[in-house]
Amino acid sequence: MINYKMVIAYDGSRYNGWQKQGNTKDTIQGKLEKVLEKLEGREVEVIGAGRTDAGVHALGQVVNVKLESKINEEMLLQYLNQYLPEDIAVLSVKEVPMRFHSRLNATEKTYLYRIYRSEIPNPFIRKYTVTITEELDIEKMRMAAELLIGEHNFKSFCSLKKSKKSTIRTLYSITIEEIEEEIRISVRGNGFLYHMVRIIIGTLLEVGTGKKKPEEIEQILEKRERQAAGKTAPAHGLFLKEVKY
Amino acid sequence: MINYKMVIAYDGSRYNGWQKQGNTKDTIQGKLEKVLEKLEGREVEVIGAGRTDAGVHALGQVVNVKLESKINEEMLLQYLNQYLPEDIAVLSVKEVPMRFHSRLNATEKTYLYRIYRSEIPNPFIRKYTVTITEELDIEKMRMAAELLIGEHNFKSFCSLKKSKKSTIRTLYSITIEEIEEEIRISVRGNGFLYHMVRIIIGTLLEVGTGKKKPEEIEQILEKRERQAAGKTAPAHGLFLKEVKY
Repeated sequence: MINYKMVIAYDGSRYNGWQKQGNTKDTIQGKLEKVLEKLEGREVEVIGAGRTDAGVHALGQVVNVKLESKINEEMLLQYLNQYLPEDIAVLSVKEVPMRFHSRLNATEKTYLYRIYRSEIPNPFIRKYTVTITEELDIEKMRMAAELLIGEHNFKSFCSLKKSKKSTIRTLYSITIEEIEEEIRISVRGNGFLYHMVRIIIGTLLEVGTGKKKPEEIEQILEKRERQAAGKTAPAHGLFLKEVKY
Repeated sequence: MINYKMVIAYDGSRYNGWQKQGNTKDTIQGKLEKVLEKLEGREVEVIGAGRTDAGVHALGQVVNVKLESKINEEMLLQYLNQYLPEDIAVLSVKEVPMRFHSRLNATEKTYLYRIYRSEIPNPFIRKYTVTITEELDIEKMRMAAELLIGEHNFKSFCSLKKSKKSTIRTLYSITIEEIEEEIRISVRGNGFLYHMVRIIIGTLLEVGTGKKKPEEIEQILEKRERQAAGKTAPAHGLFLKEVKY
């Protein structure tokens, strides 16, 4: 058996997210496993670093899978890109020690969120950006973002209510760039709760439109309840950009 | 009646091209007319400057339509963008003299063709670029392109065999840019025959891969038969970029 680490990119538009659920084959994990199972002639499990939601994309999802087939890195890369659907691409393949686990060993993840600011729709990026026609105060959004940096209990920024797991995470940075009609928000941290990035973005957008004040972030964190934060931003603006180990 | 000139952009991926054919509603023209007919309560004809093929996109298609409705430019723009599908966008609307005809009055058109050079597929631009994994000699492609510039009989670069119309056209420029993994070819001329841009691109690619020599362009033009030129490049790399009057 060889454990392979792979970096993959996908357009999540037509998938029910990363994770296989029951019989649903329309997940990224399901598509990868189906192609690899043909190679192996047995069931395999592909483990993803991030369980991206339905509609969320990836520029650098990291996965690992243990295979018995005698195939090298380059051949595996070509085999997968030949048989995977066009909206999933394997960017690299590398043999790693058997103990490597793409999700449990991840120490840092970066997500990107793309916002398009225009009255006029753009047909070519409609599946990868969320259009906002209201004015946004970027400086206030940056002030609010600053208050989220560091170690906090992010319970207010999590859609799962009943989990008993720790909701403490550390955010290393949130950068907000303006590139022509686009705003790109990068969120980097040691780990993320369910919907955490999308609730952060939704909250920053409410600060940007004046619905919330930047300093309210402190109270939102303190309250530790989902209703305190802003709305969950739509899935299709979100990309899992990079995973570090 | 007011004659409106509109600039529109579309992702042509899921359409049978610009032009309405019989009952097929899945054309860009069909979609535009359907929305405008609801406004007008009668049949309307939307005239497009370029009759783009199935799968071809537009960044700046120009159309005109004569309407009786009392609606101003700004309202018409908003109305159309509200009711058109997400993959068609109206970029601007302008009242023009009744005699303006978007196709007959066009004096210059620019097309863009996008080529992606990589062994690794890119899921996000798969619908807008054609992937070439072979080495391409860009300098030879530029030499060949140079020989196409000017007024020529482009019969060898036309897929329609039996037309009695003139096949003489003037090309003003062909520019080939390398931008990261992409090659972008812009072709600008006073008018284009059926499939002409795609056959030009196909021929330039055969020069780039060494299948044809740059100087063969002269003989191809002289022969005046479709088989002399290269293959028709795929539709989905092509964009109608700009139309001038």
